Amino acid sequence: MTGHQARPEGRGSGPTVTLLTDFGLRDSYVAAMKGVLAARAPEARVVDLCHEVPPQDIRAAGLIWAGAVPYFPRGCVHVAVVDPGVGSRRKIIAAEGKGSTFLAPDNGLLGYVLRGRDIHRAFEVRCPRLYLKPVSATFHGRDVFAPVAAALAGGLPLEAVGPPARRLVPGGVPGPRRRHLGGAGRHGLEVRGEVIHIDVFGNAVTSLRLEPGLRIRSLEVGPLRFPRLSRTYSAAVEGEPVALVGSSGYIEVAVYRGSAAREQGIRVGDPVVGQWG
Amino acid sequence: MTGHQARPEGRGSGPTVTLLTDFGLRDSYVAAMKGVLAARAPEARVVDLCHEVPPQDIRAAGLIWAGAVPYFPRGCVHVAVVDPGVGSRRKIIAAEGKGSTFLAPDNGLLGYVLRGRDIHRAFEVRCPRLYLKPVSATFHGRDVFAPVAAALAGGLPLEAVGPPARRLVPGGVPGPRRRHLGGAGRHGLEVRGEVIHIDVFGNAVTSLRLEPGLRIRSLEVGPLRFPRLSRTYSAAVEGEPVALVGSSGYIEVAVYRGSAAREQGIRVGDPVVGQWG
Amino acid sequence: MTGHQARPEGRGSGPTVTLLTDFGLRDSYVAAMKGVLAARAPEARVVDLCHEVPPQDIRAAGLIWAGAVPYFPRGCVHVAVVDPGVGSRRKIIAAEGKGSTFLAPDNGLLGYVLRGRDIHRAFEVRCPRLYLKPVSATFHGRDVFAPVAAALAGGLPLEAVGPPARRLVPGGVPGPRRRHLGGAGRHGLEVRGEVIHIDVFGNAVTSLRLEPGLRIRSLEVGPLRFPRLSRTYSAAVEGEPVALVGSSGYIEVAVYRGSAAREQGIRVGDPVVGQWG
Repeated sequence: MTGHQARPEGRGSGPTVTLLTDFGLRDSYVAAMKGVLAARAPEARVVDLCHEVPPQDIRAAGLIWAGAVPYFPRGCVHVAVVDPGVGSRRKIIAAEGKGSTFLAPDNGLLGYVLRGRDIHRAFEVRCPRLYLKPVSATFHGRDVFAPVAAALAGGLPLEAVGPPARRLVPGGVPGPRRRHLGGAGRHGLEVRGEVIHIDVFGNAVTSLRLEPGLRIRSLEVGPLRFPRLSRTYSAAVEGEPVALVGSSGYIEVAVYRGSAAREQGIRVGDPVVGQWG
Repeated sequence: MTGHQARPEGRGSGPTVTLLTDFGLRDSYVAAMKGVLAARAPEARVVDLCHEVPPQDIRAAGLIWAGAVPYFPRGCVHVAVVDPGVGSRRKIIAAEGKGSTFLAPDNGLLGYVLRGRDIHRAFEVRCPRLYLKPVSATFHGRDVFAPVAAALAGGLPLEAVGPPARRLVPGGVPGPRRRHLGGAGRHGLEVRGEVIHIDVFGNAVTSLRLEPGLRIRSLEVGPLRFPRLSRTYSAAVEGEPVALVGSSGYIEVAVYRGSAAREQGIRVGDPVVGQWG
Repeated sequence: MTGHQARPEGRGSGPTVTLLTDFGLRDSYVAAMKGVLAARAPEARVVDLCHEVPPQDIRAAGLIWAGAVPYFPRGCVHVAVVDPGVGSRRKIIAAEGKGSTFLAPDNGLLGYVLRGRDIHRAFEVRCPRLYLKPVSATFHGRDVFAPVAAALAGGLPLEAVGPPARRLVPGGVPGPRRRHLGGAGRHGLEVRGEVIHIDVFGNAVTSLRLEPGLRIRSLEVGPLRFPRLSRTYSAAVEGEPVALVGSSGYIEVAVYRGSAAREQGIRVGDPVVGQWG
């Protein structure tokens, strides 16, 4: 990925903090976090990744995080607050990997942006001296995440946020199941996965990727069957579904100038079967 | 509130201007305001508080403003344009209080962020030399608010915008009515208020706060009755309503992993009665 | 337009890149573009114009662009990615005009912000060395537009992006048809146009403007007929439709504290007839 590129030292305009939440844009929640960041890290640049994650949908949040984070330069502080467990005993994790810092509840979110061996270091956030006081039981985005992110953006060493974190909650896109096929007339690879995301255009993103060195022979997505992949949306006939490799590398189903989800009734969780050979 | 914190002198990246409007994000209105700010105050940092205020809903705007502004550092210019009276004789007010500057139509909005005695100085905006020309009758956000905010962010003294303002339109969350109770078996305090806001998660925010030194004995919110307050959302059984103190300090009703408003039919304006003792 | 104002040399905080897309705010698409910009042009300030353009609606995008761009200072890089032809042979154009740089697919969008003679120079973008690698077939916003915009913001000369562009796809608001009227009892000018946009308040924007030196005698918009224009929204009786000159200079129909589109059933494309004299 060519998006990776170290920020030149000594220039730019301060550290970058990115925000991903399910707080929506109809309320004061995101704004309060920005206020804390403006107060505690006035030199940081704050970038909104997305605040319209479906409420408490960790998978949707993780896929959006995975679609954006790789394009940012090294040295960012990436904050994700999709946190059904707020106020409970769930941990908050600050991790370092791929040259940047990540702050998220320990609920599987990190697994979408850092695989196990990508995590250079991880700590459990336990530093009440940094929090807003009193810490509310319901809004850790403002009272915990924002001030800790501000401190990290301002140069606080990662290990200063708390003790090393052990055994993170696993997460990430579920890997598809693979089966090698043999026998007369059928050989190659069968891969079974599912629809993992419906994007804003109604494209249905699956958990299948290209299989290096193999050619697809058929793809079934819910009720649809495709004999091959197309190269672009516009190569299709208007209104007709096509399967292609989407911009995140996953195979997806699209309808040119239409919505695959709405017009073909595809939903998250629908089974996907690919035959390769 | 620990969010209050003076911006360190001599660093940071210029003044901060925050924007709160009901213009939505589907049109050019917010962008045009940002264009004027970029042209007239190139050093200012512009922060979106919220643009999805329900059209012309002054109370919703005020509550969002009140939920965000306290977390910003001193020295900001906070601009709110929710302005059903645009083009009429309503005044525009520039006020100073709590270390920041506020710009809003004189329609009650200011009362949500500055109580009477918090207002250090207030002036009526009448400085056509700053406005875009010609001033449209329908879009003062772009033609009046943005250039005046830019000038204030650039250091224009507040008194230069116009004459001192007199008798502002009152506003703010209506205080609940209190009644001291006596008699056999019942004593303490009865507090009557209402549901003032439904947030993005469907939580119903009331106008009641904790009563210092007292314990709640019962709380009625619309058709619901609670014998006590919970501490967090997740302490609840999934799908069951709980009452708790929300992040803004008001008592609210929530449904863990659900929507109190939708599932319990609670609406803004529903009566709320608390018994304390 | 007084919004035009050169950015003072030697101050400010780096170049400004504005973004207009139909990617919505529910996905990672806009965030990925911002990541590329942060990596490739760390000194640029990125301003969101609008990301809620109806999918692939070039006219809506053009009108939003036209409503915002004139208020920005000279020297910006304005990027529009509403691009039904992504992955096909459509060109991408980088043009210079009115003191700023514009980057858009060659599908008529440019015509909304630059008339023919406003275009100082225009080039076809063909500079794969700048693109992300591999370039996806479906997401040129991230892989082509963002890195080219970053390079232009960083000072790349416009002519370095590719060969001079010839014959751009025409675009822009369709001019209304004019007919001079004579005869007993009727003389003056008849102008026929259409409803070109429904804004976020439900106001119906038409393609008609004021006719210099003439007074309107009647205006028909869909089923409605107005004997005159009003000056402001609030001059109207609540719930009653009025016609007035909107903030963009076009004549529009509004309902004070209501929605002209919803309550009067007005739609984009409805015929509009004005009689002037």
